[in-house]
Amino acid sequence: MAIINENYLKLQGNYLFAEIARRVNKYKEENPDANIIRLGIGDVTRPLVPAIIKAMHEAVDEMGKAETFRGYGPEQGYSFLISKIIDNDYKARGISLDEDEVFVSDGAKSDTGNIQEIFGLDNLIAVTDPVYPVYVDSNVMAGRTGVIDSSGRFGKITYLPCTAENSFVPELPKNRVDMIYLCFPNNPTGMTLSKEQLKKWVDYARENKSIILYDSAYEAFIKEDNVPHSIYEIEGAKEVAIEFRSFSKTAGFTGTRCAYTVVPKEVVAYTKNGEEHQLNKLWNRRQTTKFNGVPYVIQRAAEAVYTEEGQKQIKETIDYYMTNASIIREGLKSIGLQVFGGVNAPYIWLKTPKGLSSWEFFDKLLNEVNIVGTPGVGFGPSGEGYFRLTAFGSRENTEEAVERIKTRLEI
Amino acid sequence: MAIINENYLKLQGNYLFAEIARRVNKYKEENPDANIIRLGIGDVTRPLVPAIIKAMHEAVDEMGKAETFRGYGPEQGYSFLISKIIDNDYKARGISLDEDEVFVSDGAKSDTGNIQEIFGLDNLIAVTDPVYPVYVDSNVMAGRTGVIDSSGRFGKITYLPCTAENSFVPELPKNRVDMIYLCFPNNPTGMTLSKEQLKKWVDYARENKSIILYDSAYEAFIKEDNVPHSIYEIEGAKEVAIEFRSFSKTAGFTGTRCAYTVVPKEVVAYTKNGEEHQLNKLWNRRQTTKFNGVPYVIQRAAEAVYTEEGQKQIKETIDYYMTNASIIREGLKSIGLQVFGGVNAPYIWLKTPKGLSSWEFFDKLLNEVNIVGTPGVGFGPSGEGYFRLTAFGSRENTEEAVERIKTRLEI
Repeated sequence: MAIINENYLKLQGNYLFAEIARRVNKYKEENPDANIIRLGIGDVTRPLVPAIIKAMHEAVDEMGKAETFRGYGPEQGYSFLISKIIDNDYKARGISLDEDEVFVSDGAKSDTGNIQEIFGLDNLIAVTDPVYPVYVDSNVMAGRTGVIDSSGRFGKITYLPCTAENSFVPELPKNRVDMIYLCFPNNPTGMTLSKEQLKKWVDYARENKSIILYDSAYEAFIKEDNVPHSIYEIEGAKEVAIEFRSFSKTAGFTGTRCAYTVVPKEVVAYTKNGEEHQLNKLWNRRQTTKFNGVPYVIQRAAEAVYTEEGQKQIKETIDYYMTNASIIREGLKSIGLQVFGGVNAPYIWLKTPKGLSSWEFFDKLLNEVNIVGTPGVGFGPSGEGYFRLTAFGSRENTEEAVERIKTRLEI
Repeated sequence: MAIINENYLKLQGNYLFAEIARRVNKYKEENPDANIIRLGIGDVTRPLVPAIIKAMHEAVDEMGKAETFRGYGPEQGYSFLISKIIDNDYKARGISLDEDEVFVSDGAKSDTGNIQEIFGLDNLIAVTDPVYPVYVDSNVMAGRTGVIDSSGRFGKITYLPCTAENSFVPELPKNRVDMIYLCFPNNPTGMTLSKEQLKKWVDYARENKSIILYDSAYEAFIKEDNVPHSIYEIEGAKEVAIEFRSFSKTAGFTGTRCAYTVVPKEVVAYTKNGEEHQLNKLWNRRQTTKFNGVPYVIQRAAEAVYTEEGQKQIKETIDYYMTNASIIREGLKSIGLQVFGGVNAPYIWLKTPKGLSSWEFFDKLLNEVNIVGTPGVGFGPSGEGYFRLTAFGSRENTEEAVERIKTRLEI
């Protein structure tokens, strides 16, 4: 008799976005003429830039000719892409990496979800709260978390609250943790750590032989100095950190699918007997066994991000979104709302006014000004009383939304 | 202290293709002028057909315009592709499927590697021997297999030998097995099961509440009647079988990456307490949590496979390879070699002459006629004494290789 993985039964339902859809649909039925603006979406809306489109057309043509056709590529990605990733994203910041330390993949979601496979089941994990749900769910599925309690917390996970009270800077855990998920610039709060703040985590990991799983999918949005783009800007991080990057938000690849993960050869974890093993080798074995690489055409698209034209063009798109972020941030501040993020990230995280719950504020925004956002509590218990808006809408919708909030929302 | 997944240490090294490369390179150094022909390769060589190239160009253009740009798609794949898969690959054979029973992915390697995640660790697995290594390795990594013995077999895996003695038809296991991996047309042997032979497996699974993981990545190469293209042609299979399909060999997508997996809603597995659960729901949860869909451009490419033009064009490519298969098969038979496969699959599996081991024959072929193939023992202990050649080379190389074997190989 085939038995299921019973850990799946411990997962919470994917209620957040389903519940949002339910409430929006109900409102639309009752108010068919309402002009609803969605600023909850975590998906980009600007098209791929011309340099990328050109590279894709060329690669498609190559695939149509026997002389230039490409079959299986290296599971880890083509050297033409990896070399440009290293030169532009790391070497330019004084970080040296070998080509076999970078693994090209179909998404940071896949990689942050799959990375836990190379770790033992007895490791204790820590996540910031609120948090991107994939870190938690992938560990629930593997059986590392125990069961969920009435507060929405899994018994064996260490939650690191990030709220206005601690300026969204997580405190070092008091109990032992072995695997630490950090995402900066943060989704959903849009907040960052300074180099000094991140250094504390690297030092902690080195002292405790823990591993930091560092998601820097939003690094391209960093505008301020002293905010690290890569964890490897911190001394010693190569011994303890795996870094995840993505072209999704950087270059509009949410529907095009390309990302990469850096696993330096210095990073080690241990057998129960204390024997050291390179995580680079384990991840390479995982990827070569269960993954067959990113489409050639897509890798050429990602390569084009690093051309002079490509860099100029994606910067324009990022500036477009960050101008939206600024419009939202300044607009909300001007009416006295407490807002966070939106400076080094495309997310604006606001404290709900008058002590409203996340869902109460969701309803208020929908009913009074026909704007859809994301309830903060959907990202974790410490997100209660917060709300996320994103900068990925069109300029027109963003301006209209802010105008409605400023002039028509009763707060 | 972070602990590794110690199951990884039970894996065998990826020695097969590394060892082939080592021997070929050594030969080339010693014989720099040798004209080596590679017929060991499992990768396609013909370009993507014009209908696919056209669809990709169109989709690339859509991605460059704000009005038609696509961000995140459904993790399970776009309806435009799933509906065509169902109509062409299933409905046309009398099999009805709902759209939410088909999951589009980046490859059958990913899916056959990942599918075991939704099953408990106490399930006993069975594989044919020889076998595609991903089925075994992904279960080793998860901890279902025990350790390997000196014969190359993992203690907790049930191996089902497929050799000339049983005409490559695996016998039903005598012990209990819960998860059964079957691949037909088979890689590496190129052999198939008849509907009657496959029905025995479906009946076994229904009686024992086992699950069949059916890899039919090579179904497009089937030429003979009474060879099932889909396991769902067998009565009752929808209750017990998950089917994997791929565009890799069907339409030359090894470097383009698109596949799909069918999980009917009828297929159930159990908790230890005997509670039934739909595997469709578990797989959906796995995919939505750890995967973000196939690139839009690639899904449009796959859709073009099902146009009238696309069908005609990919058939020409398949015929090209199958003519190669026939040239190899008939050429080898004409000099008295015992050959299998190559009729409904692009693989030719030959019994080595004079009782040579797989590696001895490899060296003989390389040294005497400069042809590289794949030693059968690399696919499992029962592959010893066999050798794989593939039909994916160019016509010219295939003809030249067969001519060399016929005229210059001493057997």
